[in-house]
Amino acid sequence: MTEKLTPRSQDYSKWYNELVVMADLAQHSEVKGCMVIKPYGYAIWEKMKEALDKKFKDTGHQNAYFPLLIPKSYLSKEAAHVEGFAKECAVVTHYRLKTEDGVVVVDPKAKLDEELIIRPTSETIIWNTYRGWIQSYRDLPILINQWANVVRWEMRTRLFLRTAEFLWQEGHTAHSTAQEAIEETEKMLDVYADFAENWMAMPVIKGRKTPNERFAGAVDTMCIEALMQDGKALQAGTSHFLGQNFAKAFDVKFVNKEGVQDFVWATSWGVSTRLMGALIMTHSDDKGLRLPPRLAPIHVVVVPIYKGVEQIAGIYDQMKPTIDALKAKGHTVKFDDDDTKRSGWKFAEYELKGVPVRIAVGQRDLDNGTIEVARRDSGEKMSISIEGAADHIHDLLENIQATMLLESRTFRDNNITEVNSYEEFKTVLENKGGFIAAHWDGSPETEEKIKTETKATIRCIPLDQKEEPGKCMVSGQPSSGRVLFAVAY
Amino acid sequence: MTEKLTPRSQDYSKWYNELVVMADLAQHSEVKGCMVIKPYGYAIWEKMKEALDKKFKDTGHQNAYFPLLIPKSYLSKEAAHVEGFAKECAVVTHYRLKTEDGVVVVDPKAKLDEELIIRPTSETIIWNTYRGWIQSYRDLPILINQWANVVRWEMRTRLFLRTAEFLWQEGHTAHSTAQEAIEETEKMLDVYADFAENWMAMPVIKGRKTPNERFAGAVDTMCIEALMQDGKALQAGTSHFLGQNFAKAFDVKFVNKEGVQDFVWATSWGVSTRLMGALIMTHSDDKGLRLPPRLAPIHVVVVPIYKGVEQIAGIYDQMKPTIDALKAKGHTVKFDDDDTKRSGWKFAEYELKGVPVRIAVGQRDLDNGTIEVARRDSGEKMSISIEGAADHIHDLLENIQATMLLESRTFRDNNITEVNSYEEFKTVLENKGGFIAAHWDGSPETEEKIKTETKATIRCIPLDQKEEPGKCMVSGQPSSGRVLFAVAY
Repeated sequence: MTEKLTPRSQDYSKWYNELVVMADLAQHSEVKGCMVIKPYGYAIWEKMKEALDKKFKDTGHQNAYFPLLIPKSYLSKEAAHVEGFAKECAVVTHYRLKTEDGVVVVDPKAKLDEELIIRPTSETIIWNTYRGWIQSYRDLPILINQWANVVRWEMRTRLFLRTAEFLWQEGHTAHSTAQEAIEETEKMLDVYADFAENWMAMPVIKGRKTPNERFAGAVDTMCIEALMQDGKALQAGTSHFLGQNFAKAFDVKFVNKEGVQDFVWATSWGVSTRLMGALIMTHSDDKGLRLPPRLAPIHVVVVPIYKGVEQIAGIYDQMKPTIDALKAKGHTVKFDDDDTKRSGWKFAEYELKGVPVRIAVGQRDLDNGTIEVARRDSGEKMSISIEGAADHIHDLLENIQATMLLESRTFRDNNITEVNSYEEFKTVLENKGGFIAAHWDGSPETEEKIKTETKATIRCIPLDQKEEPGKCMVSGQPSSGRVLFAVAY
Repeated sequence: MTEKLTPRSQDYSKWYNELVVMADLAQHSEVKGCMVIKPYGYAIWEKMKEALDKKFKDTGHQNAYFPLLIPKSYLSKEAAHVEGFAKECAVVTHYRLKTEDGVVVVDPKAKLDEELIIRPTSETIIWNTYRGWIQSYRDLPILINQWANVVRWEMRTRLFLRTAEFLWQEGHTAHSTAQEAIEETEKMLDVYADFAENWMAMPVIKGRKTPNERFAGAVDTMCIEALMQDGKALQAGTSHFLGQNFAKAFDVKFVNKEGVQDFVWATSWGVSTRLMGALIMTHSDDKGLRLPPRLAPIHVVVVPIYKGVEQIAGIYDQMKPTIDALKAKGHTVKFDDDDTKRSGWKFAEYELKGVPVRIAVGQRDLDNGTIEVARRDSGEKMSISIEGAADHIHDLLENIQATMLLESRTFRDNNITEVNSYEEFKTVLENKGGFIAAHWDGSPETEEKIKTETKATIRCIPLDQKEEPGKCMVSGQPSSGRVLFAVAY
């Protein structure tokens, strides 16, 4: 690492863009809006996938796979849905190329009768399929998830945060009652919140979107909202109660226990590689990534400090019992024996990569029976006995995970501000940022006015909203509780 | 299960198509050529992925992710490559839809300057990216794999065997010497062969493709070839030595240890959801799937045989220690307490689904301290003591895995026939099928003639080909060893 990161205080956005590239997480491809996720970034995403997938299975879901390509006509069957997605669809119109005078061109003879779109989300093709799977209440519930890539054409893209193609999971469930579907919607929101807090060490606020901000085709959109270090909010996951909208659009009916035919109730829920952006912006600092241990591809790096290259093998041998004991506890350990890099360079590199624990050890330490352990989160260094070091480091990793959550929660809590006037709102927004809890009259017009004037949107109506009669800060109309505003990613 | 499978002897192809659908593995979608992989089928694919992914990582590979969409111009940079893939490309030409008089149409204003194709394989975009990653031999090797969906437009499709969209993994590695790349090509072929034999219980022949059958852009294509029950061959995986072809097409150079600049050496290798078809056609019978235990989503199903519904819970309680002991050994066990289905129906259903071991148990068995165990592979039933049953069944599962491999290997070995004349060749092909080992003069013309006249292709030049001077069965020209012909999927 020769270059230095732009400090966050100087240009947060630039810091983020540089960090993603310098830490080898991802890069832009030459295809507009599409990213390459590099091995180190993908390893973090794999850890996320693994944890989420287990949670989905533990809550009774199964994985399946539905087609990438969706007939254009499907999209238009649900009015709100097409409105929301038509503007950003990649459209397949032909199925063959040919060579003409040595140049590869689209073969005009291979034009599709009906254009296909690359899925921006899969409600339409999945509900079209569910029609064939569901006859009676005995076929319900259907609890399915898919891990997939989707494409939503974006003009202004940022790595992980907004890309034309991204990776995600989308759950699509079918139920015989509204109540059961609503419970599913809430359950998956809880799964997401639990993952965000206990794996990503990122506290989130659970809430409900306003009608304006709802998913196109949903009756109710629930969300988890996180706060980034620059005071902007980030929607980290959504869980939608779709009512019978898609069942009606695709004619999916079932016979209930009473022998009466009704439309099926639906939910859908998803998180994406956007979580990578959230993870980075929640924890990282001017030295680079800070990764919570539960999502770190490497938990512990051992950097041998040697006088001559011939010492490296000896240091490794003496460290091996500790390394093996750490591995036996499920940790990933790297012993960096690269003799072409100086240890100062390595320290900076592993700080950049966010490895939670670094061990630096030379022969003199070993003669004293000690090793130097540095934690990435706080930068704290300590000399510990090599005897019992694995247990010590195991506990330290748990402590780092907990400390990072505590830290980000403290930051988040310190950045929720209650305001009682629009003036105050604008002042806080300008000088402090963060979530602003304010009264709102519930009208889309007021919401739109605030957005236009300040760029702040209603992130959510928190589930734990206190009943507190008040007046809308803009219109003065009555309000029964505060909603959370923020400028968002 | 009310319908019955068409027997294999009556119509093998129909049997396959019915089985895939009836066993809930996959179905056609309404999008031409694209399939829906249902949860039970996907669970088998997940087991395949997990085993392969571990093998890739154990051999030093990392996962990454490259864009779905590839600029049309990339494809044309490698002459053979574009020749091989242009005819089956899905082409994205627009990035927006709009509503016109209530109808959703492609927005002509949103036409792309350069069309994008959906990846049929990723050599081009990956080598275009590697150019930025590689400067010197220190950056090599790059050992990357990606799990992804690809699209190759097919007019005649069959579930798993040939679909427009399929799921696969594609490894793409970069090396500083030809030798190292060739070793990588061979190593990954061995990984595939090991997976096929020891997970899928499917013996394969490792070999080399003739120039005619090579991957578009490869210098050498190695493959594993399996034999299906109907005597047709199936290419189950390929590993390509790409030479410097893609490095030259995308200008990827490195400075070697001697300070001299050279083009980088490449390999690529892949297996796909086609393996699902191979798995089904290697093992299954007229009752349904037969799954090797290492890839079975459910290893053991327990079907309680009860007189009154109230007995089910009691049977469960008495079976619980055995079930728990099996789970502790890593097996997936299902206790089927559904009281709306008769046990005869359940037996047929789990046979259809290929669950390796079925336990049938009633109160009278339990009073005698026994349970009835049936193995799916042979249909054999045995009454065993419930004491130590978990150990017994654990061993039985290993035995089933081994027996299935032995059985398919015996079948395969019995269906490799040596012939010495073209007449004999045609007779064997017509009456017996299977692999036919024959002398060939090495010319593409002879190969093409045989293909046109008999539909048989050269599956491979086996790696273990014996040196045996002979004469080409068609031209009479000299040959140094036999190659393997077959009609193939």
